[in-house]
Amino acid sequence: MYNFVFQNTTKVYFGDNQLSHLGEEVKQFGTRVLLTYGGGTIKKIGLYDKVIDELKKANLTVFELSGIEPNPRHTKVNKGADICKKEKIDVLLAVGGGSTIDCTKVIAAATFYDGDSWDLVTHKAPVTKTLPICTVLTLSATGSEMDSGAVISNLQTNEKYGLMHPLLQPKVSFLDPTNTFSVSPYQTACGSADILSHVFDIFYFNKSEKIDMVERVTEDVIKTVIKYTPIAIQEPTNYRARANLMWASTWALNGFLQTGGEFHAPCHAMEHELSAFYDITHGLGLAIITPRWMEYILDESNVSQFKKFGVNVFGIDPKLPDMDIARKAISLLSDFLFNKLNLKSTLHEIGIDDKNFMTMAHKACRGGVLNGFKPLTEEDIEKIYRMCL
Amino acid sequence: MYNFVFQNTTKVYFGDNQLSHLGEEVKQFGTRVLLTYGGGTIKKIGLYDKVIDELKKANLTVFELSGIEPNPRHTKVNKGADICKKEKIDVLLAVGGGSTIDCTKVIAAATFYDGDSWDLVTHKAPVTKTLPICTVLTLSATGSEMDSGAVISNLQTNEKYGLMHPLLQPKVSFLDPTNTFSVSPYQTACGSADILSHVFDIFYFNKSEKIDMVERVTEDVIKTVIKYTPIAIQEPTNYRARANLMWASTWALNGFLQTGGEFHAPCHAMEHELSAFYDITHGLGLAIITPRWMEYILDESNVSQFKKFGVNVFGIDPKLPDMDIARKAISLLSDFLFNKLNLKSTLHEIGIDDKNFMTMAHKACRGGVLNGFKPLTEEDIEKIYRMCL
Repeated sequence: MYNFVFQNTTKVYFGDNQLSHLGEEVKQFGTRVLLTYGGGTIKKIGLYDKVIDELKKANLTVFELSGIEPNPRHTKVNKGADICKKEKIDVLLAVGGGSTIDCTKVIAAATFYDGDSWDLVTHKAPVTKTLPICTVLTLSATGSEMDSGAVISNLQTNEKYGLMHPLLQPKVSFLDPTNTFSVSPYQTACGSADILSHVFDIFYFNKSEKIDMVERVTEDVIKTVIKYTPIAIQEPTNYRARANLMWASTWALNGFLQTGGEFHAPCHAMEHELSAFYDITHGLGLAIITPRWMEYILDESNVSQFKKFGVNVFGIDPKLPDMDIARKAISLLSDFLFNKLNLKSTLHEIGIDDKNFMTMAHKACRGGVLNGFKPLTEEDIEKIYRMCL
Repeated sequence: MYNFVFQNTTKVYFGDNQLSHLGEEVKQFGTRVLLTYGGGTIKKIGLYDKVIDELKKANLTVFELSGIEPNPRHTKVNKGADICKKEKIDVLLAVGGGSTIDCTKVIAAATFYDGDSWDLVTHKAPVTKTLPICTVLTLSATGSEMDSGAVISNLQTNEKYGLMHPLLQPKVSFLDPTNTFSVSPYQTACGSADILSHVFDIFYFNKSEKIDMVERVTEDVIKTVIKYTPIAIQEPTNYRARANLMWASTWALNGFLQTGGEFHAPCHAMEHELSAFYDITHGLGLAIITPRWMEYILDESNVSQFKKFGVNVFGIDPKLPDMDIARKAISLLSDFLFNKLNLKSTLHEIGIDDKNFMTMAHKACRGGVLNGFKPLTEEDIEKIYRMCL
């Protein structure tokens, strides 16, 4: 068990009809707002109009940055920062999923930096100050609405990196499950694969002795996703399912599950290379990699954690041999991801071949060893990519 | 499932050897510190010297208020507020358990009020401003180190009330499990009974439809207490046991378990009358009342929640009849409290007879109905007190 510091200051409004508080919350940070969003889904579902309405009622001056991509680019960050500097923006309001929020977080920091925002992402320049960030969430997936991290891609260099800084923490986030009613079955599945991968990759499968309650909560998040994702896909407007997924996704990566444990993310590192080279959906990449990674690393030295996973999450009979429980658990996870959620199960199916595997493997471990439940060399990573073909 | 607002801003340092950060954290709020503590245990265990040492290293000027009682009195709050006004205190540092922290919270508010602090507790005057509060926790029980509540007693009027206000939230709390190594078996048991009662009384046994993950976490807290309290009593310096109890007690009442559900606390209301009249230990009073309250309210309309408790917490066979599972669960809880933790099981054993029951019952429901899993009238409450004799 490790010592730790825990603090999470984000104020969360959860539930339907909470948007009436948006104006007052945004206004406390100033009057000039940059509204950021993605491809226009928020207009289709009527959320854009509601947000604008609340901001106007509060007499706020609204500027806009739209078209933020999945796997958001540093070029879009630069564009946002330019608007903030030019228009003397006081506060940012991200309306969207993890990509929109992540992009907005780095805009908040890049506003106070004179060079290319990629310097902040690659730690060539430090985050020194940020504009305050508010969010209205539209996808249960990354947890960005209540954490201090952001992931940005550079398609010119085929790089995708995460940036973490306390100043990136949103001030206020609005989590209304009805805003996810229109999320497609495919995006719902990808979001849930993302949540699962966070908790497996970062918190559940690592070597540190954990605090019991925290490890049980990790399993609670996993069980919530396994129970409610198929329901949300079958009945997109099932409030209970969408609400359970939303609150679980937020807690999957807001710092709490990390308390007392190690922090590694080998599958994320491997997936970031896939997204950086092929611009695929993050959750889908993680879904394909995670079970193969589990198969690859499973051995006698770590089987007890896989057994715990099988027994506590899938209810597998604890009297079976440990290795059988572990293999069955991994197989049930694959069945969930690729049959129940209907996600594509191989890189081949999404048009990726092995031509960049060596380069990607090298970059994923930055030429050294990728730490985690079992440290992975470049050769290990390449083998895992091949298992995903 | 209810809409809710969640925010918890306290910064927590968890683990041993974190006190080296105390000076820098306190200093950010000013240089004149009022150190508050109880009966001197912190001197016996060497914590007082360590705290003073860190404060001196940070060049802080330290004033002291000692002798804060269990069930802290409004008179002590007044005394603390007088010191703060006279000495122009910038920041409060509470070193102790829930009583010391609660008293300190209300001192923080009373410093900006010119009348008797009891007016704040009874809502005759509003909390408008507070001094910043830091804490060093020495008992796993009330969760006051990471919440915005405080409970204060008035022994002149035999009243004990809770006050909640966002401004009472501690800024920084230091949670070092080794600071609870010297807590006696009796106080460890009372602290754990307190934790259990929070989660039963306030969060687990209520009628609202809950978020799955949150309900499971409630059970995780209960299971942590049931697993680790006997270990902490047998092996007082078992770090793992003390750490699990400490982090679970903090999360038992920091707002998270309340998300999506109702907030009622009938057992607490009944216990506050016992403490107000007889100045008994809060956790002990709750231990005596809680299983009797469960027996009294159990019926066909609410048996499903008791069944969930029996199956998920105690692993009782779900195929048994629901009412059998419910009764067995309550009986196992009594066995845990009164046999495994060795707490006294009746009011008679702690010198309380029935002479004030009518008055206490009247005050507990303030002459109306005490809301909760099953609303209780004055007559109901008196019957429950009699079951505790």
